[in-house]
Amino acid sequence: MNQLSFIPLGGIGDVTKNMYLYEYQGQILIVDCGLGFADETMLGVELLLPDISYLLKRIRSANVKIIGMVLTHGHEDHMGALPFILPRLPNFPIFTTPLTAALSNEKLKEFGVLGRVQSIAFGENDIQLGAFKISFIRVTHSVPDSSNIFIKTPIGNFYHASDFKFDLTPFDGKKTDFAKITAASKEGIMCLMSDCLGAEREGHTPSERILSENIEQEMRETQGKFILTTYSSNISRLNQAIHAAKKQNRKVCFVGRSLVKVSKIAQKLGYMKLEKDMEIEAKDIKNCNDKELLLLVAGSQGQQNSALARIANGEHREIRISPLDVVVFSADPIPGNELSINSLIDSIAKKGTRVVYSKISDDFHVSGHASSEDLMLMMSITNPKKVLPIGGTYSQMVAYKNLARKQGFSDDKILLIENGQEMIFSKDKAILGKKIELGNIYVDEISEEVIDHFVIRDRQQISKEGVVIIMAEVSAANGQIVGKPNIITRGLSHQEQAIINKKLTKELESALSRRLGRVADWVYIRKRIGEVAEDGIFKSVHRRPLVLPVVIEV
Amino acid sequence: MNQLSFIPLGGIGDVTKNMYLYEYQGQILIVDCGLGFADETMLGVELLLPDISYLLKRIRSANVKIIGMVLTHGHEDHMGALPFILPRLPNFPIFTTPLTAALSNEKLKEFGVLGRVQSIAFGENDIQLGAFKISFIRVTHSVPDSSNIFIKTPIGNFYHASDFKFDLTPFDGKKTDFAKITAASKEGIMCLMSDCLGAEREGHTPSERILSENIEQEMRETQGKFILTTYSSNISRLNQAIHAAKKQNRKVCFVGRSLVKVSKIAQKLGYMKLEKDMEIEAKDIKNCNDKELLLLVAGSQGQQNSALARIANGEHREIRISPLDVVVFSADPIPGNELSINSLIDSIAKKGTRVVYSKISDDFHVSGHASSEDLMLMMSITNPKKVLPIGGTYSQMVAYKNLARKQGFSDDKILLIENGQEMIFSKDKAILGKKIELGNIYVDEISEEVIDHFVIRDRQQISKEGVVIIMAEVSAANGQIVGKPNIITRGLSHQEQAIINKKLTKELESALSRRLGRVADWVYIRKRIGEVAEDGIFKSVHRRPLVLPVVIEV
Repeated sequence: MNQLSFIPLGGIGDVTKNMYLYEYQGQILIVDCGLGFADETMLGVELLLPDISYLLKRIRSANVKIIGMVLTHGHEDHMGALPFILPRLPNFPIFTTPLTAALSNEKLKEFGVLGRVQSIAFGENDIQLGAFKISFIRVTHSVPDSSNIFIKTPIGNFYHASDFKFDLTPFDGKKTDFAKITAASKEGIMCLMSDCLGAEREGHTPSERILSENIEQEMRETQGKFILTTYSSNISRLNQAIHAAKKQNRKVCFVGRSLVKVSKIAQKLGYMKLEKDMEIEAKDIKNCNDKELLLLVAGSQGQQNSALARIANGEHREIRISPLDVVVFSADPIPGNELSINSLIDSIAKKGTRVVYSKISDDFHVSGHASSEDLMLMMSITNPKKVLPIGGTYSQMVAYKNLARKQGFSDDKILLIENGQEMIFSKDKAILGKKIELGNIYVDEISEEVIDHFVIRDRQQISKEGVVIIMAEVSAANGQIVGKPNIITRGLSHQEQAIINKKLTKELESALSRRLGRVADWVYIRKRIGEVAEDGIFKSVHRRPLVLPVVIEV
Repeated sequence: MNQLSFIPLGGIGDVTKNMYLYEYQGQILIVDCGLGFADETMLGVELLLPDISYLLKRIRSANVKIIGMVLTHGHEDHMGALPFILPRLPNFPIFTTPLTAALSNEKLKEFGVLGRVQSIAFGENDIQLGAFKISFIRVTHSVPDSSNIFIKTPIGNFYHASDFKFDLTPFDGKKTDFAKITAASKEGIMCLMSDCLGAEREGHTPSERILSENIEQEMRETQGKFILTTYSSNISRLNQAIHAAKKQNRKVCFVGRSLVKVSKIAQKLGYMKLEKDMEIEAKDIKNCNDKELLLLVAGSQGQQNSALARIANGEHREIRISPLDVVVFSADPIPGNELSINSLIDSIAKKGTRVVYSKISDDFHVSGHASSEDLMLMMSITNPKKVLPIGGTYSQMVAYKNLARKQGFSDDKILLIENGQEMIFSKDKAILGKKIELGNIYVDEISEEVIDHFVIRDRQQISKEGVVIIMAEVSAANGQIVGKPNIITRGLSHQEQAIINKKLTKELESALSRRLGRVADWVYIRKRIGEVAEDGIFKSVHRRPLVLPVVIEV
């Protein structure tokens, strides 16, 4: 059939774990392969993966295969799932821009997976992947070498406008390639898949460059160490701080594993320029005057155990903070991180150190995402038949819809879908296809292995309700409880423990006394003890702990 | 000694669980008795209490007693801990303003505690409590009858400026009593204890009244139900919505236990005026045209199981949401609640219903706290010798300090202290006193009982690391493990379980084989199995689950 199936496996509604499938006549093109970040209810979990079970099932069919993958840019939520996902899929080519390729391959290497992401420069020819003709278009965002992807297919063309903004004066001078966007527009665009994260924000997103002067000014007034924290991938922000440090004769020290890694890659590929004697390692800063130091430190989201958290709590081996230092948070809080960021800021403030953060100053961070006007500009330039917002919450998609209406799109041309919802495009229309059930795929914080949903459920239950272990000796001869059952609880209060101990013993005895004779079915006995206990505990203390009955045959 | 000891038991740094002790010659005056709210790391806990162990110890001394308590206003974080704290303290008088007293007594009643909070109107005479002369001064805030407290003592006067703003055109017309503040100022103020929550915000906090027009306008354009959610205690906001509903012939329905309760009290005391036929119960709204309804719904902070969450998820028995309805969030997110609020907004947006929230409109909420200029105005009017910020995070206290500097206070006159830090005031100076160690006092979400810290620690460990139960039969004759130990795990992955099973059996056997002979000390055997297991598990899967060894004597 002459149609294209578009399915988001992640990235819609939940912002992160971006992964999109474009399938045409059994050829599947994957765009992005990103991580999600767990919230606090997902106990012991740090990362989430897109659910690829549909994809795995699909490629088991005859005549269906993955023709290739393209990555839009080097942020974790667009490429971080590669080490988890690639080993589970057959081989296919993967293309992306140079810095994105380097960051992806480094990440794969860390996990012991072969780095097979191929780099393609913006100037190079388009790539033909089966029926798909792919063109990378440079856009500005908060990491260099970010791209939008123009996808030509036999039934029409798609413009995949993943994370972008229109920075007309980017710090590295590498502007959005408007000429190439216009050229794509001329070829006709069936649907614009567009970033919508900034759709609730009015106006245009300001240029990264407006921060330079503020950083220089603040640095100049700083009598001690100048400490700036931002996302490790925000190379442009790091470059601005480095630029200011050069002028003011401060040496630069990268602190934190991720920042050190990114700065190495960026320097190697020429995205960061730093004379050799200007960089200094953390262990050597004790030999420097504080006034001659710029520390670029990981941990802007208040992550526990980050370099900045350790510095703030006086636990960092090489770095102490002093009242003359200044700490600048050059990043906005990601929703959900507010409390830990606030508490980190408080820890630093308690040392008497000046902290500059979003609530007291807007001068040190701009968003990497397009705002309302930019999003409408993108619609205007690409001039698509239809639009489909991606990479935002549902509310942001609704805000995007309102912008699209202002741009003259009728409601049937504005496609709001959820993850797992197939959209079927044919030459003249787009209709809803099947809805795929997607699960949450959790990566355990400690083992870094994928764990099952029921493990999280167990953890949630135990953490809130506690655990009760009931050890009962049961006579094989008559099926009666011998002696007093041993009851161990964890996560319950003393009072509750006492109540349970008192009530349960009797209830268990009477529950088992109703049957008599030799025990034939030990599983039944165990189950029965569990049921009676769960019931009895709920009745007496209104709690549903995880009950583990243990039967000892005597 | 002629000095006064001031000790915050809560409210400084953590914003909530406000409770302050003023002690003069063995007489303790308590100001406020508020709850704290647990963060997501406090598993199975919803509420926190101020730690009163110092107070309990103190009043055990001869010649020390609690002379009385005063409450500044009717917010949970200032009076919500009463039902938990009062039963643990001896009897003493408690005074506050009429609405605050009604809300407090209602709360005590719910918990089966005698409601003994006495109401005093603003016009009445000052109260003499031992050496303290107390005067309630009306201020504007987001709940009616909010007060600042002027405390006269033999060594000097204190102005306790708990939560306030300067709303010059409050919706209920009851303005801040500037005359009384000025009069207090004339008597001389030794120290101003001041709200500092808004110290990071520039300018003045706008009046509540500016919202009226916006609410009316939005309501007028709403074709379906007009649904407004705010804090239950924000009676002024509720009144504005009710006022608009009157004009537009909409009936009013309060939805959610807390809102129904507050509206009843407010109506009874005359703080809310609603003709009898204008109010309607949830069960009757099915008989009304949607266009004739205003729903005032609890759940503006995205609380699970709140009325609004149940409506959004289609789980409310009487109320369905439709695309013609409009839902207005008339409250800013409290830090930490962002994710659940976002997800609630998304659920509503998915129904096609218009949602108005802080990110897309500033027109429906103003803060109840003073901003920078208001805080400086308060310093100006009260003209104290010293200032001491309360009720804010440390960063907000630092921001307040910067404002105080602008008002000409030298650093030694700006007192930044943490909870538990005693400040000793004498006629001519203020010095730091002892530092009291304060613990976290948790209230269990289910039992509503106070639980110990180690219970939370157990829950945290189990929730992140899982639990492993090791049941080993040990021969009493020779102390050796008989058969294979039974290992039960929860919260661990299949792989980890398999690894543990395989490795641990051997390790346990060899650990015990080193000793031989009859078992004399079963506790030692149990402990040894626990240690070997913890060690073995950490070595094999890098995890520290809660290990519960169970030894069965055979």
